[in-house]
This record gives sequence, structure tokens and C-alpha cells, in this order.
Amino acid sequence: VLDPEMTVGKLGERALIKHLRSRIPTGLGVSVGIGDDAAAVETGNLTLITTDTLVEGTHFRREWSPPRLLGRKALTVNLADIAAMAGIARYATVSLCLPPDVQMGFVDGLYDGLLERAAESGVSIVGGNVASAWGELVVDITLIGSGDHLLTRKGAVPGDLAVVTGHLGAAAEGLRLLQQGARLNEELFLTSTGIWTESSTEAVTHCLRAQLDPTPPLALARALAEQELVHAAMDISDGLSGDLLTMCGESGLAAWIDPDNLPLDPVAAALERARGKGAFDLALHGGEDYQFLLAIPPDKMDGLKDLAVVWDLPLTIVGQFFEGEPSVSLNRDGSMEHLKPHSFDHFRSRPTVREGSQTS
Amino acid sequence: VLDPEMTVGKLGERALIKHLRSRIPTGLGVSVGIGDDAAAVETGNLTLITTDTLVEGTHFRREWSPPRLLGRKALTVNLADIAAMAGIARYATVSLCLPPDVQMGFVDGLYDGLLERAAESGVSIVGGNVASAWGELVVDITLIGSGDHLLTRKGAVPGDLAVVTGHLGAAAEGLRLLQQGARLNEELFLTSTGIWTESSTEAVTHCLRAQLDPTPPLALARALAEQELVHAAMDISDGLSGDLLTMCGESGLAAWIDPDNLPLDPVAAALERARGKGAFDLALHGGEDYQFLLAIPPDKMDGLKDLAVVWDLPLTIVGQFFEGEPSVSLNRDGSMEHLKPHSFDHFRSRPTVREGSQTS
Repeated sequence: VLDPEMTVGKLGERALIKHLRSRIPTGLGVSVGIGDDAAAVETGNLTLITTDTLVEGTHFRREWSPPRLLGRKALTVNLADIAAMAGIARYATVSLCLPPDVQMGFVDGLYDGLLERAAESGVSIVGGNVASAWGELVVDITLIGSGDHLLTRKGAVPGDLAVVTGHLGAAAEGLRLLQQGARLNEELFLTSTGIWTESSTEAVTHCLRAQLDPTPPLALARALAEQELVHAAMDISDGLSGDLLTMCGESGLAAWIDPDNLPLDPVAAALERARGKGAFDLALHGGEDYQFLLAIPPDKMDGLKDLAVVWDLPLTIVGQFFEGEPSVSLNRDGSMEHLKPHSFDHFRSRPTVREGSQTS
Repeated sequence: VLDPEMTVGKLGERALIKHLRSRIPTGLGVSVGIGDDAAAVETGNLTLITTDTLVEGTHFRREWSPPRLLGRKALTVNLADIAAMAGIARYATVSLCLPPDVQMGFVDGLYDGLLERAAESGVSIVGGNVASAWGELVVDITLIGSGDHLLTRKGAVPGDLAVVTGHLGAAAEGLRLLQQGARLNEELFLTSTGIWTESSTEAVTHCLRAQLDPTPPLALARALAEQELVHAAMDISDGLSGDLLTMCGESGLAAWIDPDNLPLDPVAAALERARGKGAFDLALHGGEDYQFLLAIPPDKMDGLKDLAVVWDLPLTIVGQFFEGEPSVSLNRDGSMEHLKPHSFDHFRSRPTVREGSQTS
């Protein structure tokens, strides 16, 4: 057993790899697992590949994200991508860039979360890389899945309804709460309410969990694809306004949104109301909820609702696609107002987790 | 056309992704390429997955590596891993962590090299990620391949010869030359000899090219696997001493090396001699040559030689495997001297490209 305060710099690359390898079980379908030049895994005819990165200072802060939750989220953001294609996630590689002062307690906590989330979702970790970094810690995961009936972002047709699963805004509210000093521990219990009083414990916990341990409805899109209910799907990672514009671009359509019919997370909305604000911007532009955006013909809505009942999953018709140059408008009782995309752009306007940044 | 001095911070994530996407062709077997939640690609029953990362300050410096060569190398190090498994490289994802001050000229140069190397090796870039970083630039590539007859690190048996392809030490010598001020431009021509005189131009160029644009014999292992000539294979990325120990560990064997029979790169050896040193340590411990280490039964050596002729590839019997606890010894005329592994360990002893570091 390694001393949790031992740094990776002191332990060394070879011993670190050996230790991590000893923790990772060989999963189903894995012919050659960790420890060779490459992993060899069983696949079908159509393989899905996605990759997503969490960078310290851009996507998380070490003092905000207990390592177990960081590990869970690093896999979850990729699971949402495979799920949005109606695929089945199967194998993952994990690339870590670690500053030498990172302690083994942190690395093991990260792997606790990774392995736990992998087990929950039937994913085998089959390889990866550890590299020494000097500035920030980076967790880059590539997730491999199988697919048959795929759902892409391209298939929306004019008249399709734009439907959002679940609620939006809680993850962005959670980020704001972290900036205000609220904290969760690795067991997802609140250790600090930040600027809020104890009476808000439940609400604060809810939003922090949404930010630090998102739970997308992973099985939904696959069921939808099998029943051929929807034309297009994607996960809402950057925010509804930008992601809907992306789907418009891929499908070659315009879309409108009804601003009075956004699925605001009720808890996030209540916290915003308590400080005299609305949660509208959070729901429209805030990202990281990892819910799904669907394009569905109106006559398939009943089938979709029947399916969503299985997961007790709210569905909201937020708007509709129509012929036109790719764009998103707010439809206020028939009067259209062009909406500028305002999603997360980590390079430019709104670095999410830097000191003093804001998400809306 | 974008201004090459435009920074990625100014351009923004959305425009950067759009620009990169416009540069990447859709390749054979790619059902869904860049721009969706995940890529969808055709695969066979057995899929190979490897991932390798180049981190600024650990594996390269921006002032040392012209971006085109950095792009080439980022793919090459992964190609070597798939090749060492006797696989065929097919699809790659590219994750970039970019400090906001990185200019588009650099990003486009990086992609010039990536796309060029991908075309050379039949690889399609099918996705990736761009994230804003604050400290160092990171290029993390996951490469997906197909396999049938795999070569792993596990199959060596007692009596197998340890054979190395090509020469060793030039890449490590190239790193030393970079530290001494020698420089290549992106067309692989020398722009500075560093501490060396013009008379050494060819030698310096040779070693810098080995470091900045390695060219492993990618097709060899696959031919070997088809003809069932070797028992085990791996690429020599960290240095012969450490990588041979790794193969010993995987195969549950010991091995000895004949110190008088290492395939020192003759040019690197000449440069070392000129400064009064030997290249022995470079060949034994220096990494990044991306040649192959093979375990082969003695009666298959003739077949291996016949094959290597096709690529005009030198082969050197450096030692032999025998029963015992995993370890590597130097065999000096029958007298065994235990060899401590001394490979690159980026976390600890010898950060490779930091100021003042040394590789041997």
C-alpha cells in the first residue's frame, strides 16, 4: 500500500504505472489489456470513438473537485457523447498529465472514481498514459463504443420539434456556488454552503452534485434509436443556445426557442430568485448539464414520452426547426429575436473556473 | 485564410474547431467523421487502441520543435505502438491543450505535420478535442488500429535471442544537440549547428532528425507476425535497458545483453567520440529511437534477416532471454553484471527537455 502523501514525482513513472495497472481489472472483450504497446479489444463492424479532456484551471480546480468526483466526471462527459450517438460504451484509455507534486492520494482517488463509473457503465479501462506536466493537471479520456442504429446531429428536418431531456442550469449554478465557496466532499456531502445559510443545504448540494457528478440519461438515446423515434440527437455540454446552433449547422436548418418554455432546473431557479436574479440565462447558456437535445417529428412525441417514463425523465419541447440559414431565434409569441450563441468558449470569453469568472 | 499570428485565444474555440475541421479530409471507413458527438468508423473483430502524449517542457520545447515536426512525431510515437503489435493503424483522435497565446501559424503547422504523417501511414483523423490550457501545450493522440496476428510483449521463451532493429542513440544524441543550441527548421534543414562547426553539419542534422522526426520501421512487425517468426515485440521508446526489462517482466524471464554488441548509431557515436565520450550509454539507456525489440528463436534468425533486407534494415542480436526473475544483466564474456534500469522517467530523475537536463 502506498503512502497517500507520496508525490508522483517521488514515486516515479515506472512505479506509478505498475501501481495503476494493479488496480485496473481486465474486462470483458479485452484480449490484451494494460501493459503492452497497445490494447487489443473485441469490436463489431461499427466502432464509435470520442475524446474529451478536463484541464485544471479551465474545467476544474483541485480544491473544488474531490478527486473521486473528478474521475467520475472525466468518464461521464465521454459517456454522454457515446450515449448521444445511441452507442454502447465499452473501452476507455486514460491519459494523465500530472505535475510532480500531485500526491498518490489524489491519483488513487481519481482512479476510485474512474473505476467506479466504469463499472457502473460497463466500460473497461484498457490503457492510457501518464506524463509529467509542469503547469496544470490534465485528464484526457478516449472512449470506444459500439453502434448499430446511430443518431447523429445531422438528421433534423423542418418541422421537427427541439426537445430537451431533464432540467438545465443546475450545473452552471453549481459552478457559481463553487466560486462562492460552497464545497462537496468526495462522498457528495456538503462541507461548506459558501455564502448561503444552512437552510439552503439541500439546494446547494443539488447544484454542486449537478456540476461535480453529472448523471446524463445514458440509456435513453439508444432506446430512441432502436425505435426510430428521433431524427437527431446530441448532448448539451456547452449550453443549449450554442449546442442547438450546432445541430442547426449540422442539419442545415434554423430553429426557434420559446423562452417561456425552457426546462429551468427548479432548485437552481429558486437559488437565483433568492438573490434577486432569474435562472433563464443559466438554462439557455449554461453548460455541463449533459442532458440531450433531440430533433423529433411531432407525431413521434407520444412514443418518446412513453419511453421517457421508464427513467422518470422530464421532456420539454423547447422549440422547432425550420428551413433557413443555421441560426437560433427566441420566439416571443411569434416575434422572432435572433439569438447570439453564448455558450462556453474556454479560449475566449468565459474561462469557466478561473478566479472571478462568471458563467452568465 | 487565417492570419498565422492570430492567437487561439483571440480566435476562440468555436472558430478554431471549425477551421481545423475544414482541414481534415474524411477517410476510408469513416461513417461519421469530425463534428458529431463521436466518430463512427468501420472496424474488424479485433481493434487495437493506444494513446501517447507529448507535453511541452517534458517531451518537447516549442523553440526546439518546429510545429510540423511536432505534429509528425505526435502521430509517429503512436504509430510505433500499433506497429509493434503487428497491427494496421487506421483512425486517430487528436486532443490539444493550447495556452491562449499559441498562434494559428503554430496550430496549422502542427496539423500540416499530423495530416502529412496520417496520409503517409493511411490513418484518418476522426475527431479530437481542443481545450484551453494555462501552463503547457499538450498533444495527446489516441490511435485505433486493426489486428489479426498480434505480437505482444509476453511471448518470449528461454533461449530466444533479443534482437534490435536499426541503430540506437541518435535520438538521445539529438536531444543533447538541441540542448547545445543546434536547430532544424520545419523542412528538416539545419539552421544552427549549436556548439559544433560547419564540418559537422551532416552528423548534427542526422541526429536532430532522429530526435524530431523519428522513422520507425512500421511495416516490419506485421510481416514478422504473418510469417510467425518472432515470439514477442515492442517498440524501444524509453531506452533499451528499461524496455528489455519490461519485456522480461511481461514474459516472466531474465535476459542478458552483450555490451560489445549494441547497435550504436555510428553518427551519434562519432559525435560523442569527438567530444571525448562514448555513445554506449546513449545506445543502452537513451530513448525515443522507436526501433523494435524482438524475441526470436535462434532458428528463425535467417528468416528474419531475409525479411529485413526488404527495408534495408540492420538487425543486431544484442542478447538472449533465459529463465529467471525478470532482470537484465550485462554479459562480459560470460561474467554477468546486473544492470539497473536507467530509462527515461519523466517524473523523477531525468526530465528530458527541461533546462540543464541530461539524458545520460
